[in-house]
Amino acid sequence: MSEDGINALLLTTAANIAYFSGFQTQFWQSPTRPWFLIVPGHGKPIAVIPEIGAACMARGFLDDIRTWPSPHPTDDGVSLLASTIEEVAGKAGQIGLLMGAETHIRMPLSDLEILRKKLPGAAWADATPIVRDLRIVKSPREIEKISHVCQLVSDTFAKAPQLFATGQTVIEAFRTFKIECLKRGVDDVSYLVGGAGPGGYGDIISPPSEQTLEVGDVLILDTGCVYDGYFCDFDRNYGFGRTSDDAQRAYETVYRATEAGLEAARPGNTCRDLFYAMQKELDAGGALGNAVGRLGHGLGSELTEPPSHAAFDETTLKPGMVITLEPGMAFAPGCNMVHEENIVIRDGGPELLTRRAAPELPIIV
Amino acid sequence: MSEDGINALLLTTAANIAYFSGFQTQFWQSPTRPWFLIVPGHGKPIAVIPEIGAACMARGFLDDIRTWPSPHPTDDGVSLLASTIEEVAGKAGQIGLLMGAETHIRMPLSDLEILRKKLPGAAWADATPIVRDLRIVKSPREIEKISHVCQLVSDTFAKAPQLFATGQTVIEAFRTFKIECLKRGVDDVSYLVGGAGPGGYGDIISPPSEQTLEVGDVLILDTGCVYDGYFCDFDRNYGFGRTSDDAQRAYETVYRATEAGLEAARPGNTCRDLFYAMQKELDAGGALGNAVGRLGHGLGSELTEPPSHAAFDETTLKPGMVITLEPGMAFAPGCNMVHEENIVIRDGGPELLTRRAAPELPIIV
Repeated sequence: MSEDGINALLLTTAANIAYFSGFQTQFWQSPTRPWFLIVPGHGKPIAVIPEIGAACMARGFLDDIRTWPSPHPTDDGVSLLASTIEEVAGKAGQIGLLMGAETHIRMPLSDLEILRKKLPGAAWADATPIVRDLRIVKSPREIEKISHVCQLVSDTFAKAPQLFATGQTVIEAFRTFKIECLKRGVDDVSYLVGGAGPGGYGDIISPPSEQTLEVGDVLILDTGCVYDGYFCDFDRNYGFGRTSDDAQRAYETVYRATEAGLEAARPGNTCRDLFYAMQKELDAGGALGNAVGRLGHGLGSELTEPPSHAAFDETTLKPGMVITLEPGMAFAPGCNMVHEENIVIRDGGPELLTRRAAPELPIIV
Repeated sequence: MSEDGINALLLTTAANIAYFSGFQTQFWQSPTRPWFLIVPGHGKPIAVIPEIGAACMARGFLDDIRTWPSPHPTDDGVSLLASTIEEVAGKAGQIGLLMGAETHIRMPLSDLEILRKKLPGAAWADATPIVRDLRIVKSPREIEKISHVCQLVSDTFAKAPQLFATGQTVIEAFRTFKIECLKRGVDDVSYLVGGAGPGGYGDIISPPSEQTLEVGDVLILDTGCVYDGYFCDFDRNYGFGRTSDDAQRAYETVYRATEAGLEAARPGNTCRDLFYAMQKELDAGGALGNAVGRLGHGLGSELTEPPSHAAFDETTLKPGMVITLEPGMAFAPGCNMVHEENIVIRDGGPELLTRRAAPELPIIV
């Protein structure tokens, strides 16, 4: 911040406020009230939040928690926010706001305009790189949480033959999986998407359907379970009874691509290197394209975080980065195959946080 | 839109895009990619979305789905969005954007600035009231979904004496509840917050702690479970072994306040009327304040929606509105009591969607 001449950083979203305050609540699902955190150049952040959050925020490590009665019809925290920013940054300070890729401002746009008018002398700068660079390398404690949830979900996937069967609907299969994850100790099965179809699935972001699992189907479950505020994000594929040679070959291709990714996931290499290492295997395996747009990403207190394993991303891998390897490909019209593992970059080579998927498509009989 | 001279409406958030397209996915939890929906003055909306969403979106009722390869480092959909808006609204059209209370723009702020520059002739208008007025009255199908999830969760709460016990940690109690809700058929226990303490709880938005439930504790669980994209949002309170007279009295006060709310929840009355009807009972019961800032709200595809039962909200109740009644009060320092029921406004009187809470604080022995 000091190097960039930023006097105060204004944060508005769940993950960033949690990162700088320890404040965790599912109440973010209520879009009604805005929440603000101001990070000064020196000293602890200052919370400017609705009264409803004061008791919960006070259990964290912040000392300065300012509240207003929210919701408010004419001034939902904006005046309090403006005066706090001015106190921290002065009348002509430079305020860092996250304006770049993968961000948004979680407050009404009209209130942001009012805030700017209340601070006529302030300059506004994009602080996306500052926050990105801080969050992209995880602390040992963060890695421990991600590792823990990866283990719990790996244990659950190990039970797949007891959880999934033909005759079940996809929605039943997903529900069974959620219950098993909770029993094993995840806090929440926040994210569970996927699909199934004869020979392959059409996409990997859909909610489960009432479709019945049948012999010949390939099922994917892609899950982001949460433990103490941190996500895993990985998937597993299953065939039922028998599967097509095409599906089996596609599975082996993405498996090989993941192996290539593991080999390339070393400090000093870039996300671009990772991408090309995996894409080479996908191309060799006859990939017909990939709608996902990248072959993995960062992971932490959000399901997906920077960087992106894509040709455009030159982020250099560093020890402590937690990332997914997610090679995927279409192998026939409407048929996709996607693998995903979660790893932490270490000196020498990556550490797998997930238990490695089977080298051949597991068949549930 | 036509009355307000708006030629196209630009939507960026999960609930609004789902409302106008039927598109449902938990993939919104990934903050990486922006998604756009353009609602023209006539005809079906047009989706402008990342390639990864094309197959899922195509299962809905839209005909015109435009995609770009995302994430993209220099143009993450902005050019495609600008040309689509211009096609729909013309070079000098008026574009409706949600800028008001309870909204935010889910795209990078820098991309919004670029979009504005790409459309120099366009005017931008706040369309918050248009979307709010549409969504605030629910269709029979929407009410059916909310009613269904309210019933499933009411059934789960009915099992409380078998689910909760002293000696359990709060986190274990919450996990047990989540599993039971899933077994009964909810899609997700998206939101479960609350707390417990001797004689009362300090707030209602915290995640569960490792604290052990003990005799004399009061426990609250406040949950937003989801069924087919629609939420319930209600809570229940339990005492363990014995409870203080103060807690019992506070419980009876908020129960009476809810009764007063049910009496007042009739077409033609306003949210302000509802607020005063409930607040009168809370004041009579010795309420020491209420950090929640209102006594209930709208409910639907989001955990909380407009309106607010508060002195400032003059929204007139209409048949088909689904709302919560949520009277709450502090009754001692650090001790709160909050009730919540979900209802639909009907001619003649409200229909309870939740099974009414017990008139006295239930004691689990």
